Amino acid sequence: MTENLVYLNGEYVPANEAKISIFDGAISLGMTVTESTRTFAHQPYRLRDHINRLFLSLKAARFEAGMTADEMERLTLEVWEKNKPNYEAGTDAWIIHNITPGQWVPSSGQKPAESQSTVMIVTLPLDLSYWKDFYQVGCHAVTPFARIQPAQSLDARIKNRSRFLYTLAESEVKLVDPMAQSLLLDTDGFLSENKGGNFFLVTNNRIRTPSTINCLDGISRQTIFQLADQLGIPIEECQLLPYDVITADEAFFTSTPYCIMPATKFNGMPVGNGEVGPITKKLIASWSELVGVDIIKQAQAP
Amino acid sequence: MTENLVYLNGEYVPANEAKISIFDGAISLGMTVTESTRTFAHQPYRLRDHINRLFLSLKAARFEAGMTADEMERLTLEVWEKNKPNYEAGTDAWIIHNITPGQWVPSSGQKPAESQSTVMIVTLPLDLSYWKDFYQVGCHAVTPFARIQPAQSLDARIKNRSRFLYTLAESEVKLVDPMAQSLLLDTDGFLSENKGGNFFLVTNNRIRTPSTINCLDGISRQTIFQLADQLGIPIEECQLLPYDVITADEAFFTSTPYCIMPATKFNGMPVGNGEVGPITKKLIASWSELVGVDIIKQAQAP
Amino acid sequence: MTENLVYLNGEYVPANEAKISIFDGAISLGMTVTESTRTFAHQPYRLRDHINRLFLSLKAARFEAGMTADEMERLTLEVWEKNKPNYEAGTDAWIIHNITPGQWVPSSGQKPAESQSTVMIVTLPLDLSYWKDFYQVGCHAVTPFARIQPAQSLDARIKNRSRFLYTLAESEVKLVDPMAQSLLLDTDGFLSENKGGNFFLVTNNRIRTPSTINCLDGISRQTIFQLADQLGIPIEECQLLPYDVITADEAFFTSTPYCIMPATKFNGMPVGNGEVGPITKKLIASWSELVGVDIIKQAQAP
Amino acid sequence: MTENLVYLNGEYVPANEAKISIFDGAISLGMTVTESTRTFAHQPYRLRDHINRLFLSLKAARFEAGMTADEMERLTLEVWEKNKPNYEAGTDAWIIHNITPGQWVPSSGQKPAESQSTVMIVTLPLDLSYWKDFYQVGCHAVTPFARIQPAQSLDARIKNRSRFLYTLAESEVKLVDPMAQSLLLDTDGFLSENKGGNFFLVTNNRIRTPSTINCLDGISRQTIFQLADQLGIPIEECQLLPYDVITADEAFFTSTPYCIMPATKFNGMPVGNGEVGPITKKLIASWSELVGVDIIKQAQAP
Amino acid sequence: MTENLVYLNGEYVPANEAKISIFDGAISLGMTVTESTRTFAHQPYRLRDHINRLFLSLKAARFEAGMTADEMERLTLEVWEKNKPNYEAGTDAWIIHNITPGQWVPSSGQKPAESQSTVMIVTLPLDLSYWKDFYQVGCHAVTPFARIQPAQSLDARIKNRSRFLYTLAESEVKLVDPMAQSLLLDTDGFLSENKGGNFFLVTNNRIRTPSTINCLDGISRQTIFQLADQLGIPIEECQLLPYDVITADEAFFTSTPYCIMPATKFNGMPVGNGEVGPITKKLIASWSELVGVDIIKQAQAP
Amino acid sequence: MTENLVYLNGEYVPANEAKISIFDGAISLGMTVTESTRTFAHQPYRLRDHINRLFLSLKAARFEAGMTADEMERLTLEVWEKNKPNYEAGTDAWIIHNITPGQWVPSSGQKPAESQSTVMIVTLPLDLSYWKDFYQVGCHAVTPFARIQPAQSLDARIKNRSRFLYTLAESEVKLVDPMAQSLLLDTDGFLSENKGGNFFLVTNNRIRTPSTINCLDGISRQTIFQLADQLGIPIEECQLLPYDVITADEAFFTSTPYCIMPATKFNGMPVGNGEVGPITKKLIASWSELVGVDIIKQAQAP
Repeated sequence: MTENLVYLNGEYVPANEAKISIFDGAISLGMTVTESTRTFAHQPYRLRDHINRLFLSLKAARFEAGMTADEMERLTLEVWEKNKPNYEAGTDAWIIHNITPGQWVPSSGQKPAESQSTVMIVTLPLDLSYWKDFYQVGCHAVTPFARIQPAQSLDARIKNRSRFLYTLAESEVKLVDPMAQSLLLDTDGFLSENKGGNFFLVTNNRIRTPSTINCLDGISRQTIFQLADQLGIPIEECQLLPYDVITADEAFFTSTPYCIMPATKFNGMPVGNGEVGPITKKLIASWSELVGVDIIKQAQAP
Repeated sequence: MTENLVYLNGEYVPANEAKISIFDGAISLGMTVTESTRTFAHQPYRLRDHINRLFLSLKAARFEAGMTADEMERLTLEVWEKNKPNYEAGTDAWIIHNITPGQWVPSSGQKPAESQSTVMIVTLPLDLSYWKDFYQVGCHAVTPFARIQPAQSLDARIKNRSRFLYTLAESEVKLVDPMAQSLLLDTDGFLSENKGGNFFLVTNNRIRTPSTINCLDGISRQTIFQLADQLGIPIEECQLLPYDVITADEAFFTSTPYCIMPATKFNGMPVGNGEVGPITKKLIASWSELVGVDIIKQAQAP
Repeated sequence: MTENLVYLNGEYVPANEAKISIFDGAISLGMTVTESTRTFAHQPYRLRDHINRLFLSLKAARFEAGMTADEMERLTLEVWEKNKPNYEAGTDAWIIHNITPGQWVPSSGQKPAESQSTVMIVTLPLDLSYWKDFYQVGCHAVTPFARIQPAQSLDARIKNRSRFLYTLAESEVKLVDPMAQSLLLDTDGFLSENKGGNFFLVTNNRIRTPSTINCLDGISRQTIFQLADQLGIPIEECQLLPYDVITADEAFFTSTPYCIMPATKFNGMPVGNGEVGPITKKLIASWSELVGVDIIKQAQAP
Repeated sequence: MTENLVYLNGEYVPANEAKISIFDGAISLGMTVTESTRTFAHQPYRLRDHINRLFLSLKAARFEAGMTADEMERLTLEVWEKNKPNYEAGTDAWIIHNITPGQWVPSSGQKPAESQSTVMIVTLPLDLSYWKDFYQVGCHAVTPFARIQPAQSLDARIKNRSRFLYTLAESEVKLVDPMAQSLLLDTDGFLSENKGGNFFLVTNNRIRTPSTINCLDGISRQTIFQLADQLGIPIEECQLLPYDVITADEAFFTSTPYCIMPATKFNGMPVGNGEVGPITKKLIASWSELVGVDIIKQAQAP
Repeated sequence: MTENLVYLNGEYVPANEAKISIFDGAISLGMTVTESTRTFAHQPYRLRDHINRLFLSLKAARFEAGMTADEMERLTLEVWEKNKPNYEAGTDAWIIHNITPGQWVPSSGQKPAESQSTVMIVTLPLDLSYWKDFYQVGCHAVTPFARIQPAQSLDARIKNRSRFLYTLAESEVKLVDPMAQSLLLDTDGFLSENKGGNFFLVTNNRIRTPSTINCLDGISRQTIFQLADQLGIPIEECQLLPYDVITADEAFFTSTPYCIMPATKFNGMPVGNGEVGPITKKLIASWSELVGVDIIKQAQAP
Repeated sequence: MTENLVYLNGEYVPANEAKISIFDGAISLGMTVTESTRTFAHQPYRLRDHINRLFLSLKAARFEAGMTADEMERLTLEVWEKNKPNYEAGTDAWIIHNITPGQWVPSSGQKPAESQSTVMIVTLPLDLSYWKDFYQVGCHAVTPFARIQPAQSLDARIKNRSRFLYTLAESEVKLVDPMAQSLLLDTDGFLSENKGGNFFLVTNNRIRTPSTINCLDGISRQTIFQLADQLGIPIEECQLLPYDVITADEAFFTSTPYCIMPATKFNGMPVGNGEVGPITKKLIASWSELVGVDIIKQAQAP
């Protein structure tokens, strides 16, 4: 078994030696644009979609990665190929991109220095043990008191690592239940997103999810639209409120690592009958089929 | 001349070798609580006030530094003593604290690992060349289109490094003028703060500044209150709008490195008569006297 | 010992037989204007202030009680005199006014019928057992996710019984802690009030409380201003945020029954050092002195 | 003719003797969850839909009725059967459910006591005389200055009796016209609902109505969608503003008792040509057909 | 008696012949900056304050008058001197400044042409007959449904003639009462201003008025502060709500022509006891004394 | 060649002599309701649609034009016929309606006098030289800091000349680029409109534009819907944010004079690849075909 190698600014370094200067804009400014892709059966899932979104985020962030999207894709596959031998059959990986504007020296005028960007590409074993029970019993979704920043402050679609408020929100919901998962509201009280995923409701066999005016335009979210279309289940974007969760039949989150995380409890109340619902199950099954991996089985493998 | 030594998790390392793991919460979550202190004539200025605020920020951030405020103060002075020999008379230093919850492994359940916090204490030569001309000609304050996040999203008084939106705002104002300084509005259109400093107006010999409901409770800001009291100049906190800048006699920013940065232009229009005003000058002079350093002269030293 | 007699529309009836028609506007519309006064050593405390506020609420509610404030005061004292014999020395009473526009028949055009108002005046033994431990250990203040209605919907100063949202908010905080007390935020995220009381902070020996733009203008709140003045403690109204509680030295609620309820925990974090603070204690002592009743002792009497 | 019998907590009592304790949560907290159903030709209309919504409201209100929806339905029909003999052919009834958490004693810790819920089921003759002329001349819709509470305070879909603000709003519009009907705006200025009904516009043969983010999800509203579909008239939910009423061709309210109330005047201006429009008429006719009762004729019967 | 002469772009023309091109920015863009001054006993009242404010408005409007404030003052006095002979003793005049950026030809790139500004200076007999009865019986203040634009759209302190919304608001309140005077709320529901004046409350012998974040910084308003100081009546700026008017003892508007207009009715309810109050009367008397004109007597002169 | 004749209150006057009293409500109140129509090949384009909208605006503005829509249409054509001889083949005209409530004398009680309305109908040569290069290189869209007034202040669909804020916004964007075109945000940060036109995005071959809750319901905008339908390009109304422009493929404005103005730069960043896109080009071509005039060629004619 070879060492886990990380791509860092043109070099491959072992993951546990991968370090960046404390003067990097990642640390000084939280100025990191990011993507998280995963593999299914060792195939990166919709890698190009992730890289395209990365380049949209970079444009919105007004700095550059120092390479084209094609180069980024090629390089990412190279990183994965280097590390793939470490992954046994049945296991999968997380592929993370973190791009920053590079060194930022505070005395140089309060702006990102004209240094080269910092590019990190990392693969990590996809350990799903934290989420594995949620597939069958569902998680407890809880609304924190803090509210997601409005888009006029920072658009949630720019995937970035300035996540202070999301991390605090996640701490707040743990006050209610140590295993609770945050479901943030926006400043008007509408449902937005989880700290790292999107949210969906099923009511009378219709799937609904917030539009992307207050949440990430998730690739997993896009997969739900694709699967719903295939399965002939109506799906739509709309403004949703806590009352919609209280009165829904089913609820779930989506995110790159776990794909779908059913929520069977909301602010202390059962969602629907309190069990993972049939449409949620059907979506997990269809996704598993789509990618050729039994998502639940893999997560629950010892 | 000795090397610049940085305190990093219990060790002293040369600044240019000071690095942290790419898996640190600083990078993954932007979860860095911070302070910036400076010295005047080699004396750290109001260090204890900075450290007290650091501990309030840590409490609000719900993680710990792994030491008491007394220990932090002692340690900070030790870092400074180690590096002071590098500072010639007439020069001064910037002392930066960055504290993070430590390693954050994404597969471990989306929460900060129970690892130890990461503590960085850094001194840097205070190079004021970027700001030096502003003391006499003033800067151009410009309001970006992006708005500071409301306190119900993230309170601006928690001094942190999740500064993505502030960095973008600073880029936006550079569209108007490459040397423009951002003056952010909040989501109701009221003046809040600069990306790293507070803002003040002088109108009819009265000083006004936004209250801390939408901006950092700056130590430099507190110094202005102290100096205004000494000089018998009325000073008050209130809600301020762009119209108040347009019709003011004088305007200035405050921040740790430059202390006071006069603003003589606002969104393309002169502030007052377009020159640095008498009260601003008096405050700079009083501050210089208070700390025993001619602030302007030091900034403009070759 | 005589029976507890309630004034109900011109008659005295035993409390457990005091009933109103299910067609009353109290039930159909939540259209009840109310006051809660208490006695100290059998003396109604600031009864006239309560009655004056009742009449302001009635005016704002656009219906009438069917009697003048003088008559209401006289009648209230009569109710109290009738029931006082039941109260042993050391015990005290709660005096409640509930006034409704009277019968409301839904088929009569969706407006309060021109029936006479319903007037209820009730005395009840003041059982403080629920709150009694909070005087020494403090309660846990928690912010619910629901937000108080803005004043442009319904001004919190109109003391009324349309308390659906407050009751829900109180349920929400019990998810965090079964003994938690709600501290509601307004729709901008500012602190407003408890479901039945006002909120105060002590920071650096200064008392601060929200202005009445988003909370009841409590008589107990007025007493705090009076006591602070007597004790020479600076006190002011201002906009307050959760961060202000996190960084405060002391916190407490005020309300008619318990007078002062210290809060030593806020959203899971200690307020100050996590103990009831010296200024809070001083205020309780002064209030006890003012009314000639040891408030804590009375609450904790077996 | 038998007496009107009301179901009250397991007993049948004559309506004019139906009373509840003044200590019930209905009165103390406005904590009443409610439904209003009506009969057409002595058949309860969509009773099960009303009961299902009642149970969703109860869930959102976090208390229970003490029986299942099936039991509630059976019981409701029993109440109606008992009273039906009083209703001559051609007349119809209103069936009202009011459910409260039961006794609430203020000294018991400020929370609903663990008492049993209070269940009221009431039938009343449906007297439509107040509305009867509106079918032909239309009513005057007026926007009050007060604004409906935002959903983050209390979701308008929880059908409840904490109606203080709605009752005040209704008083406000009577300042303009004693027969005016309130059309409330939300805090962003969008049209929401009437104090007891929904609102619709017809413009260029398209029906539009606010989505349920700021109004009740009315059963009558659902009937309009059903009828529009049958009649092939396009209908959609969207955000509507006063300008949309000013420029509409037709406007009407819907509610359980009157079904459809045309509005031919808005804030002093004619809606369309100031007469009840053809689509409104068609909807009333279709509804009449659907339920086998001539709605207008019944309302105008002497 | 000579003709009324108006200053128009460097010439004196009879008022009834004073016309401007239909292509002027006044008409095409509503881009008119304005002031209204009045005389007392033929002396212009605080003319220089008005002219200073005019120049602040011009600066905020980003165009110029084509002359200095000194020239404007001199010219204004010249206009007044020319017309003064027409004013008998006991009568007074209104002096109006309207300044526009001049011709705006729509095909020339959608921006004000580089034409010279248009300057109008007009005197008019001050006919107070419309307001004359309000001094003794008070007016009826009514809140329109429309809300004043927020300062982030257009700061109310820039005195301008883009008054479409104010004029509509004034029409709306006439629906309630043909003699009603508008009292606009801002988008948060706080009191702001009348279509042409400021608003004040007197409660418990304290005068309160909205701060200028949502209303004009009126010269008459400044006079009230000056008179209150002289009379030893506490006066303060704060956020005010309709409830504050409902529960006030006295209320009044201020504006250049009528100085003080008492309001004795608010949204159909009496303010205080429904009569003009003692502090309002005292302020009118003091103002009369200050300017040497009996304000009421003059208004009521036949 | 005859003189350009303007219709002004029943008379025809030469354009350069067309003047209105400085006491007209157009000037005193900005109370002008307006329309701008243009001709294509000397045919007024959708004149009746413009006139219908004019009458809706008048209704919302609560005053009348003094004639019916039919009369207005007839009269407009008459004005055009009178002036048409001045227009050579290949040139076109702008037809402007400005309607005001007429004279407004400030001393007559602060309301529009009962004078007759002022009606102006003007034709002007359509000089497109300012915009002509934008067809091929695109303009630079920039978001000003000022925000469009919310609909609850003044609905953007009432086409009026109280344009102070729009004119200021246009000045603000010129700070970034002298040829920049304003793209205003609303107070929630959503895209609304240009100072005189609507805005569209093309992303993945789908056209999107803000709904009319915060912008004019432009006739040119309606033409885009018509053309998109013809061309089979999906088009929809939705809430849009700056991020949507940053990540769009194409962007353009629409307005009566220039029809379509491509935007290839947004806040300093290229839109798509920075060139006028294929769908934008197709729409311009289709529009040209629809009206029988080569829009670009005409604009660029010498």
